Amino acid sequence: MGINYFNRDVRDLKFVLFEYLDMDKLLTYEAFQDFDRKDFSMIIDEGLKVCREVLGPAMQDGDREGCSYAEGRVTVPAPFYECWKVMTENGWIGTSNNPEFGGQGLPAVVSGILGELFTGANFAFMTYPGLAVGNGRLIENFGTDEDRALFVEKMYTGRWGGTMCLTEPDAGSDVGWLLTKATPDPTSGDPRIYKIEGTKRFITCGEHDLTENIIHLVLARIEGAPLGTKGISLFIVPKIRVNPDGSLGEQNDVFCGGIEHKMGIHGSSTCTLNFGENENCLGILLGEPDSGMAKMFQMMNDARIGCGVQALGLTASAYDTARKYARERVQGPLFSNRNGGRVPIIQHEDVRRMLMNLKSGTEAIRAMIGKLMYYLDVAQNESDEAKREEIALRTELLTPLVKAYSSDFGYLLIRDAIQIMGGVGFCSEFPVEQYARDMKIISIWEGTSYIQSLDLVGRKLGMKGGSIFRNWIQEIVAFTKALQDDADFGSDAKLLYKASRATGDFTMKFLQYFQEGRLSLIPLISTRFLECFAETAMAHFMLEQGLIARKKLSGVDAESADGLFYRGKIETVRFFCRNILPNVFARHIIMEQEDTSAMDIPEEVL
Amino acid sequence: MGINYFNRDVRDLKFVLFEYLDMDKLLTYEAFQDFDRKDFSMIIDEGLKVCREVLGPAMQDGDREGCSYAEGRVTVPAPFYECWKVMTENGWIGTSNNPEFGGQGLPAVVSGILGELFTGANFAFMTYPGLAVGNGRLIENFGTDEDRALFVEKMYTGRWGGTMCLTEPDAGSDVGWLLTKATPDPTSGDPRIYKIEGTKRFITCGEHDLTENIIHLVLARIEGAPLGTKGISLFIVPKIRVNPDGSLGEQNDVFCGGIEHKMGIHGSSTCTLNFGENENCLGILLGEPDSGMAKMFQMMNDARIGCGVQALGLTASAYDTARKYARERVQGPLFSNRNGGRVPIIQHEDVRRMLMNLKSGTEAIRAMIGKLMYYLDVAQNESDEAKREEIALRTELLTPLVKAYSSDFGYLLIRDAIQIMGGVGFCSEFPVEQYARDMKIISIWEGTSYIQSLDLVGRKLGMKGGSIFRNWIQEIVAFTKALQDDADFGSDAKLLYKASRATGDFTMKFLQYFQEGRLSLIPLISTRFLECFAETAMAHFMLEQGLIARKKLSGVDAESADGLFYRGKIETVRFFCRNILPNVFARHIIMEQEDTSAMDIPEEVL
Repeated sequence: MGINYFNRDVRDLKFVLFEYLDMDKLLTYEAFQDFDRKDFSMIIDEGLKVCREVLGPAMQDGDREGCSYAEGRVTVPAPFYECWKVMTENGWIGTSNNPEFGGQGLPAVVSGILGELFTGANFAFMTYPGLAVGNGRLIENFGTDEDRALFVEKMYTGRWGGTMCLTEPDAGSDVGWLLTKATPDPTSGDPRIYKIEGTKRFITCGEHDLTENIIHLVLARIEGAPLGTKGISLFIVPKIRVNPDGSLGEQNDVFCGGIEHKMGIHGSSTCTLNFGENENCLGILLGEPDSGMAKMFQMMNDARIGCGVQALGLTASAYDTARKYARERVQGPLFSNRNGGRVPIIQHEDVRRMLMNLKSGTEAIRAMIGKLMYYLDVAQNESDEAKREEIALRTELLTPLVKAYSSDFGYLLIRDAIQIMGGVGFCSEFPVEQYARDMKIISIWEGTSYIQSLDLVGRKLGMKGGSIFRNWIQEIVAFTKALQDDADFGSDAKLLYKASRATGDFTMKFLQYFQEGRLSLIPLISTRFLECFAETAMAHFMLEQGLIARKKLSGVDAESADGLFYRGKIETVRFFCRNILPNVFARHIIMEQEDTSAMDIPEEVL
Repeated sequence: MGINYFNRDVRDLKFVLFEYLDMDKLLTYEAFQDFDRKDFSMIIDEGLKVCREVLGPAMQDGDREGCSYAEGRVTVPAPFYECWKVMTENGWIGTSNNPEFGGQGLPAVVSGILGELFTGANFAFMTYPGLAVGNGRLIENFGTDEDRALFVEKMYTGRWGGTMCLTEPDAGSDVGWLLTKATPDPTSGDPRIYKIEGTKRFITCGEHDLTENIIHLVLARIEGAPLGTKGISLFIVPKIRVNPDGSLGEQNDVFCGGIEHKMGIHGSSTCTLNFGENENCLGILLGEPDSGMAKMFQMMNDARIGCGVQALGLTASAYDTARKYARERVQGPLFSNRNGGRVPIIQHEDVRRMLMNLKSGTEAIRAMIGKLMYYLDVAQNESDEAKREEIALRTELLTPLVKAYSSDFGYLLIRDAIQIMGGVGFCSEFPVEQYARDMKIISIWEGTSYIQSLDLVGRKLGMKGGSIFRNWIQEIVAFTKALQDDADFGSDAKLLYKASRATGDFTMKFLQYFQEGRLSLIPLISTRFLECFAETAMAHFMLEQGLIARKKLSGVDAESADGLFYRGKIETVRFFCRNILPNVFARHIIMEQEDTSAMDIPEEVL
């Protein structure tokens, strides 16, 4: 049994859930009739316990042992079997999924908070249940009754694993160029059965021995289909074929050709999968032919939000580790009190600055993800159709921010956690260096940060004639105007006002560049725009939280646990607005330069 | 034999050496009479060959095999023995050191360029020769004739290794609190011989089997000495005692208690060393009692500049790897030409942006380090005393920038290299993920980035009544004023003008905070100030290079190799000014907030 370093303080998670978001509204929805606040709180506490006792202690050993490969089989790290057992036996796999198929039916926002805990305790392990559930949801949504009956419950309860097979050796971000092909199999007597042939690469959890079967969802082109993403179909390809009664049949022609050695997530297998090497790989068409990309995008969309949750989990865990260490590690006096004695380094000015970076960054990301998850629940359950649609579109606008910003900023924040711990942070006894290594993949998979920025600029900004984005910015502007003379947050509101104007300005420029045909300026600046929008949105959420904290503080003893929490929240909001939000202004100046040197430089010398 | 991924294009290194810096001036100095330009160029080409054929192929295997420990002994990765042999036999160890003791007597700036190549090819390996040489230099400068005769040549030629023993389990950044003690040893009959007792931690290259002996330089407190850094002495403590005739004597009482497992530099041993467990560890006092910190600072100062070189080496290698990959990897069309075909990703706008980040960041760091190294040579050799002193003080001002900025910014740039390569960048086949892991230590050891910022603000800004810094900023201001109507660089000069004013503004604020007793505002912002100063200084260097490139371009065919290089340089200068320099303005806004939330937050909830 390994050492557990996971020790999340869930106070802020509960603040988001019960004090920031309108939980009462969620509880009025039919789908959540069986729950109350106490249930959610208890579930979080139980999840925390699993993290401390089961997932956390397996994290470092999972990294050190890693996955091993031999003759087509992958063995996961030894402690992962016990993790899988506990998670499946206690219903922690499909937490927000349809109870009809063995899910727990929790609101997405509660499931998201559990996800922060679980991935913060053991990210590599959590890739296995994460893919099983995502995969099951796609089959639930687009499969036939028979598909649902055969697969979904087994995936929501973790009896079978799952994968998303998109990437090929020559088609990464450029998935439309995939070469895997599907041919109708007339011998099967079922027009939905195809023979699959091709190679997929970088398939997370593509092969492992945690479950008796793995259900691959494979993108392939039916012979004769149009080129590009419009000709791609989606297939259910089980590792072991499934008989009509649900029992396991014979081995399918799917072979794991090897696993990757990686910077991090050593416990999560990253596989090359060969389908149909012996011309005997059968897959079931999911939905209509040529509709695969759109379907996969549903899973991808969930996965992108999941990436934000993963990034949050790791960042928050790095913060927890660094703050605990900073309390215990004693070094010299403060800069501002050179003649004082030795003190725990949590008193050192620069350590406090870095801890506040971590704390405010973590809480702002959590606020953003909490908001998005909450919107998902509203969009799913709200009776007013117009309201439902507007909120659904907000979730779409927020998704690329959650995916890209959380993973990129989280990587920087974990760097601060290492720095706080000094040489100890670089060593492997404490897991902060592992958090850094594990984190890096999140800004790459499920669409790189750049792909997210194109999704934002190319697809999301223009939704409803741009009104979804515009209304949002105007909401922030109105919020800041009302707050600008506030004694506690006035200067922060003014900064946010300027930031929201600067962020809005990017979109005007994008329009202009489109009209003038100066197209390359858009992708050159789009990641920067995404970051500006994310920081602006997060500063707004943080200020909303600050107002709540101030109000609640007036009703409690300032030295009580709650009093300290609210005081901490107020300072954290200020820190975010005064130390992170101003980065918007640098990016805005960068945008104003309209620099094309990256395109103008001769390719030979780039 | 491993795979070599090291493939530096040395064109920019030679530009810095022969076109940017005033090499003719260096060649007038007595110390460099035996060299000419051609020699330096040849030496660099030879060094490059060693990197490609010897150091580079050992890099990944060094990481994968790592160091191993058993019963006090450390074994280095197998391919490192051949590296050591080649490096020592060909005089690559003490490249800039005194020829009287086996050094090659090269200018520091040439040695620095070799250092970029060597550390870029195999950073972990280079820690061994780096410490041997640094250590030898300290003995050369402060030892007796006997010390010099016994130790220095053996270290400059790599026959023996060396270490700096500062850190202890309870004294890291706070070295003044070290507990290792030294007691006079009357039985030796030599008042310079002491018995040493204590434990040192995180000792790089503290034990290994590359050399027959290791000379530890150990900080310890002679019994009765004052507390703090003023009571620390420096001792030469050989692993194996050295007889007066230079032959090896008996084993000293120095025991390696274990090595650390780390995020990176797996091939470099990081040791716990126990001195005098059996009360039989003898050390030779180096220089006067209680003068150890000042002496160690000379080595530390060299080591800090060396950290910049290491960071440059890794960043440049990450850039090389990413650009090569981007030329070969084919994916979908450009954003600005959606109907075009598939292209190598080096044509993709966002990939170009990231490559330019890497290119301009690398070249700017190289310019800064080149300048510092060149100043070192001038300060060492200039006949005019006033000039010599001024230049020496400039090197002191630049040192914390080179140490902290290069390592912190380099870590971010390597992140871009990973991102360019996508999933492949996260995997271990290519070494970019290793560069990221190896890099992280550089912002920690030899004084963290925060310690560098305090060195800058607390010691260096005030040199000569602040005139060294002030003159520098005024030089930049004058430079930008002269350039502001320039057709090519006018807008960049204007940005730099504003940036230099903003940077100067920080120092006014620091004075004010000192006077008003608002001391904590200084350490809360000092790292940000360091970054502003570094970017301002680098933008200045880059614009100087841009002017040279433009002038030279007018004399060559624009499509020739030189023509392409100069055109590339001009675009790179622009990119730096327009995409990196503007970060100064965000930090300036952050400074203006005078935010104390990190100090105001109750410690319980931080």
